[in-house]
Amino acid sequence: MSTAEREDDGPAYPHGADLALIPSELGPDRDRGSFELAPGLCRFDGALYGGTGVAATVMAMEAATQRDALWVVTQFVAQTRVGARIDWEVQTLAPGHRVSQLSVVARENDSVLFCGLGATADPRPEGLDGQYIPMPMVSPPDDSPPLLHGPGTPALRDKGFNRNLEYREAELLGDHDGASVGLWARRTDGLPLTRVGLAYLADMVPMAVARAAGKLGAGFSLDNALRFATVPPATEWVLLDLRGEVASLGYGHGSFTAWTTDGVLVATGSQSATMKAVFDLDDEEAVSRWKAHIDAMLSR
Amino acid sequence: MSTAEREDDGPAYPHGADLALIPSELGPDRDRGSFELAPGLCRFDGALYGGTGVAATVMAMEAATQRDALWVVTQFVAQTRVGARIDWEVQTLAPGHRVSQLSVVARENDSVLFCGLGATADPRPEGLDGQYIPMPMVSPPDDSPPLLHGPGTPALRDKGFNRNLEYREAELLGDHDGASVGLWARRTDGLPLTRVGLAYLADMVPMAVARAAGKLGAGFSLDNALRFATVPPATEWVLLDLRGEVASLGYGHGSFTAWTTDGVLVATGSQSATMKAVFDLDDEEAVSRWKAHIDAMLSR
Repeated sequence: MSTAEREDDGPAYPHGADLALIPSELGPDRDRGSFELAPGLCRFDGALYGGTGVAATVMAMEAATQRDALWVVTQFVAQTRVGARIDWEVQTLAPGHRVSQLSVVARENDSVLFCGLGATADPRPEGLDGQYIPMPMVSPPDDSPPLLHGPGTPALRDKGFNRNLEYREAELLGDHDGASVGLWARRTDGLPLTRVGLAYLADMVPMAVARAAGKLGAGFSLDNALRFATVPPATEWVLLDLRGEVASLGYGHGSFTAWTTDGVLVATGSQSATMKAVFDLDDEEAVSRWKAHIDAMLSR
Repeated sequence: MSTAEREDDGPAYPHGADLALIPSELGPDRDRGSFELAPGLCRFDGALYGGTGVAATVMAMEAATQRDALWVVTQFVAQTRVGARIDWEVQTLAPGHRVSQLSVVARENDSVLFCGLGATADPRPEGLDGQYIPMPMVSPPDDSPPLLHGPGTPALRDKGFNRNLEYREAELLGDHDGASVGLWARRTDGLPLTRVGLAYLADMVPMAVARAAGKLGAGFSLDNALRFATVPPATEWVLLDLRGEVASLGYGHGSFTAWTTDGVLVATGSQSATMKAVFDLDDEEAVSRWKAHIDAMLSR
């Protein structure tokens, strides 16, 4: 479908499912937009959730160009809190015949919150198409238990960004090493996963690095770099096959692939994180500090 | 070593090995710099080599902050040719206590050639440290044959960026799938591999995507996202364990890990590419077109 055909029916981007996740106002040329940071777009403590930033960056690039996102990196620069008004602006670095090269800056007032680089693209006629790595063998979503964030805190499931999505812990059935974590993820509102939806739920590498290190707790994402293949229209569940690869001097790196239940590889990604809130399970003081922190968040 | 200690002995960044690769003039605050696009920083056809852009982005961020690069993405926006004067400028998005968040823009006159986002960092005291994935089993560099770019073109080895580095094809000895390509790489000048040197030689994912698809030819990188762990000071050879993961509608995505001969995981990376010059080995017309293209480059 060419850009011209799409424009006959009004803009195809953002998709309805994207706006349901991040209700936004767009400018007349769709290269600017704005949204309010609702509680569902925040972390449990009311701060901006990283996945919201990545999803907004993808949405901004697709809206400005009316093309599918091909790759998008989002850098988390500064924090803000629930209720903030976030404005974004897309700059076209190179308006290619098939590939648009873009940058995005999102601000609250004049302060940069997050920014991104990336590209959107139209298909290449008879372009190369195929997937070259196998899907990991895992338990299906219905046989996978809910993910319990941190040391047993199911009460968090209705807090913050968790109200918009559901994670289940996939059991890894084939050969794998201790670096792998399998998570099934879907939207809780029944809407299909678009690239924007995928970006929203894919901020999970820091947890995988902590787990690979045999630790509890969390890291804080510095960025998320996503690469998209074709996403089937009615995608509900995706498997995030996460790998915590390495940590060095307090900073962790990892990657993931994202798969539909039918085995379609829809995206890959990688993230770096500051691993500043990780601790050992047998560190009783750290575990009770963490639990108190969770309790404090829940009582807000 | 703190920033203050380093400054007593003059700036630690760029390293001498970095400037030997990309001889550059830096401004007084080291947040700007400039270099001439020498033949060794170009592709075989005299166009800007992607690895040069990534290496320059890493060098720019480290020089501006006097900290090690943690993660760096470089987007290739426009092309230029041998002899061009390239100016870069670093902007600090967030000057953190330990982590500097940065953007880089490189221009020829007023045109953007490439740009980057990323972070540099000082170590976190008692920070998480470990590697969580195994090094692939491969033949050592001395038992690995030279990499022949394209369909048998050893004459290219003294052309373009190849004069600064050497690739050898590592034989994969353990379990692996068809998506993996192992390459040993080193600098030809005998200088150690820094993060800048690693960035220079790590623009190889498009080739891995073509190989995973069972094709010859090349793709054109759209970007390179690198994540660095600690790089031992006297690193000579690194193994690039490349994976061509997926291609969709003419665009390919892949990733890699980079290892020392001692099994230290020094970096990970991922790239997207336009897969526009790939063809089947039995497509005689395409193979002769490709050979004529190589011959034309060699006769320039």
